[in-house]
Amino acid sequence: MSTNGTAVDHGGALPETRVSGVSLRDIVDCHHVGPTLEWLENHAPHVIADELARMDAISAGIAFRLLDKDRALDVFEELEPVDQQQILTGLRDERFRELVEEMDPDDRARMLREAPAKVAKKVLAGLSPRERRMTAALLGYPEGSVGYYMTPEVVALPRNLPVVQALQWVRTKGANAETVYTLPVVDAGRRLIGVVEMRDLVLSSPDAMIADLVEAEPVFVRATDSAEKAARLMQGTNLLNLPVVDSEDRLVGLLTFDDAIEVIEAADSEDVARQAGTTPWEGHYMAAGVFQLARYRAMWLTLLLVAATLTVSVTDFFSGTLEQAAHLALFIPLLIGAGGNAGAQAATTCVRALAVGEVRVSDLFKVIWRECRVGLLLGTMLAIVGLVIGGLFVGAEIGVVVGITLVIICGWAATIGGTMPLLAKKLRIDPAVISAPMVTTLVDATGLIIYFTTAKIVLGI
Amino acid sequence: MSTNGTAVDHGGALPETRVSGVSLRDIVDCHHVGPTLEWLENHAPHVIADELARMDAISAGIAFRLLDKDRALDVFEELEPVDQQQILTGLRDERFRELVEEMDPDDRARMLREAPAKVAKKVLAGLSPRERRMTAALLGYPEGSVGYYMTPEVVALPRNLPVVQALQWVRTKGANAETVYTLPVVDAGRRLIGVVEMRDLVLSSPDAMIADLVEAEPVFVRATDSAEKAARLMQGTNLLNLPVVDSEDRLVGLLTFDDAIEVIEAADSEDVARQAGTTPWEGHYMAAGVFQLARYRAMWLTLLLVAATLTVSVTDFFSGTLEQAAHLALFIPLLIGAGGNAGAQAATTCVRALAVGEVRVSDLFKVIWRECRVGLLLGTMLAIVGLVIGGLFVGAEIGVVVGITLVIICGWAATIGGTMPLLAKKLRIDPAVISAPMVTTLVDATGLIIYFTTAKIVLGI
Repeated sequence: MSTNGTAVDHGGALPETRVSGVSLRDIVDCHHVGPTLEWLENHAPHVIADELARMDAISAGIAFRLLDKDRALDVFEELEPVDQQQILTGLRDERFRELVEEMDPDDRARMLREAPAKVAKKVLAGLSPRERRMTAALLGYPEGSVGYYMTPEVVALPRNLPVVQALQWVRTKGANAETVYTLPVVDAGRRLIGVVEMRDLVLSSPDAMIADLVEAEPVFVRATDSAEKAARLMQGTNLLNLPVVDSEDRLVGLLTFDDAIEVIEAADSEDVARQAGTTPWEGHYMAAGVFQLARYRAMWLTLLLVAATLTVSVTDFFSGTLEQAAHLALFIPLLIGAGGNAGAQAATTCVRALAVGEVRVSDLFKVIWRECRVGLLLGTMLAIVGLVIGGLFVGAEIGVVVGITLVIICGWAATIGGTMPLLAKKLRIDPAVISAPMVTTLVDATGLIIYFTTAKIVLGI
Repeated sequence: MSTNGTAVDHGGALPETRVSGVSLRDIVDCHHVGPTLEWLENHAPHVIADELARMDAISAGIAFRLLDKDRALDVFEELEPVDQQQILTGLRDERFRELVEEMDPDDRARMLREAPAKVAKKVLAGLSPRERRMTAALLGYPEGSVGYYMTPEVVALPRNLPVVQALQWVRTKGANAETVYTLPVVDAGRRLIGVVEMRDLVLSSPDAMIADLVEAEPVFVRATDSAEKAARLMQGTNLLNLPVVDSEDRLVGLLTFDDAIEVIEAADSEDVARQAGTTPWEGHYMAAGVFQLARYRAMWLTLLLVAATLTVSVTDFFSGTLEQAAHLALFIPLLIGAGGNAGAQAATTCVRALAVGEVRVSDLFKVIWRECRVGLLLGTMLAIVGLVIGGLFVGAEIGVVVGITLVIICGWAATIGGTMPLLAKKLRIDPAVISAPMVTTLVDATGLIIYFTTAKIVLGI
């Protein structure tokens, strides 16, 4: 083929350009089989999967059944576990079995964990004994562990082979393996003693010995280790695949780069969701119902509202001050807004620095000292603006109150925002739970105390 | 080796466990050469790079010069461009040249873009003509493009070879290539006509022909395409490397998986920073100075403060209402807090959904309709809590005002928060710029209008 012709549907085809056409959903919903078939034929598997994920279960099922056999598998592999489940429940038994048998064991295990017991049972029953055994083993690892994500189908090499025989070995045993690029070298007890990259096999002379090519101090992880940490380790070391061993150092699988990317992306999505005060979830935004979207936000929103009752109490407590200087009310939103923003900046920076490993729990006091100075510096800068705003709206005296409050609030907010994620981690709570809105709400109440106290002192009331 | 012995420094060694020991920084700062050498010998390159990144330029330079030659290169490759530059400026010419010549052309180009002109000149002058040519070509691509990140050292295969000869071809030409796992197949004019995976070469019979193995409709991108979109395409299709072509479909390089992960991580970090209202930057948190940290937050914080002047105007406008019912002031922080949170949730969800491609610009009206209903639903739920809080602190009438305000504010905030990122994208602004604090500040001012208007109507003032 010439790359000119089909560029638009593949690489040149970055998501934007696809939007111009009619969407699969529209075609299917109009019950036109012909156009649907044509659309399916003219789009790449990952594009089709993307469209299916946006559709409701019934339309997606109709479109999927119209795919021819080979493409159906390609598309199916690109789908998220939730969507795979939906598709499966709509299929006849024979096709159901075929699809499930062809999946990689790690993808299958991940889908099964989220599937209702009835579907899971049916899936396992339809598998060949070999595939069933591997899937069952993976199902034993806890969520979020390396074992949960690894592939158990690995080509392991013995130590004393020449390269030409090792390549022959890979050719014989590698057909089912998810990757043949990282070849763990094991002893007779299947204990990991090193790693050979396929690159080294291919580039070496055929008579070279595996023992001479082996990386003898391989980076590896245990199946029970955290998948996110393992994935970030791969990112830090630029490794394609990471050998996984059990508690007795026996090779049990490989964590592949595509699963690592997925782990990192899921962790980042989760951190982002937490930072905004919503519960993380894995569904597709456009496929979710309104009630479902609301449910994921409801808990935090309610908690934050209840916590905000503190601000009512504080204002109530200072109602005398507020009565004597009614103008103070004008600046409440501005001041707690500034404090909230300064706190959210510090919190987000520190949560991220913790996640990528730039900051460690032992840095607690260094972080407090840094953020306190950063906050005071920013507060001093804002105070100049605040002085002007306060002066213009009411008068110089209120301007001074607003200015001083800004310095103190920003110093305090940045310190709290930077410190809380570290404290959370120390207490073994996910630092991302210390979300920006949580810091903001806390800073709101304390900020009001700072404001009214400053006002009482400066205005002498 | 037995994996037991050194597990702690490598894989088993996920970042946490490293903290227990003394840090490299402490050892170097005490001027103990012996312990420094010992520490360097006992840690893996990526661990050493991690520690160097946390240190100031001088200490890092001292530690780096103590590394032996081979390990120095390994460590150097793990460093970020900024840190590489710092290290380089402290080295004598001979070692400087060696290190730079050994780097991958794409990494070198990335470092050079950020280096001061003096360093860049020195680097280019010291290179062999071949390396200089490749680096110069990469320097021609704009920041954020695929060309900026790709590796130009690719093994391209002609179409009509048997597998055994293709493997021989790779063995001869592959030594300098960054990867040999994705082998683009080109015609006589170096135009991309397909891709062969090394996996297929290794698993096929030696007499099979390349023409039969080739994936004839390869996914590819252009060198001028957005690197983030290309990286997300790789993530979506689970491709290890993506062929890159120029405007005439000629092969110019490969985007490798490790660069793709880096692109995605950088984009995510940037989105997170923007969501918190700070300017994204690439430095290391612990290595940054206080002034530097403050600088990255100052602009947004000031802008948001100036925008918050709106809230002062609105409150000032309604000061008559506030005088007649002073109790209204008590609930200002709570109400604008709830609106801000609901808006931030919607904004963050939609920015993320846009980034990963779940939502498209053409979904604008669907998103408005969804978020509006989600917001009203959440608002109704919060209204019950607000009714109780308002009733307890002041009385039933204020409770009703607070309740009604919550319903309207949440519906409005979620709609605005969900819509603004899409509008930004439509106007070709990065949606992540529509940060949570920006939505919050906007909702603060409009929320006050909603509050005071509701109060006037319900209380009849």
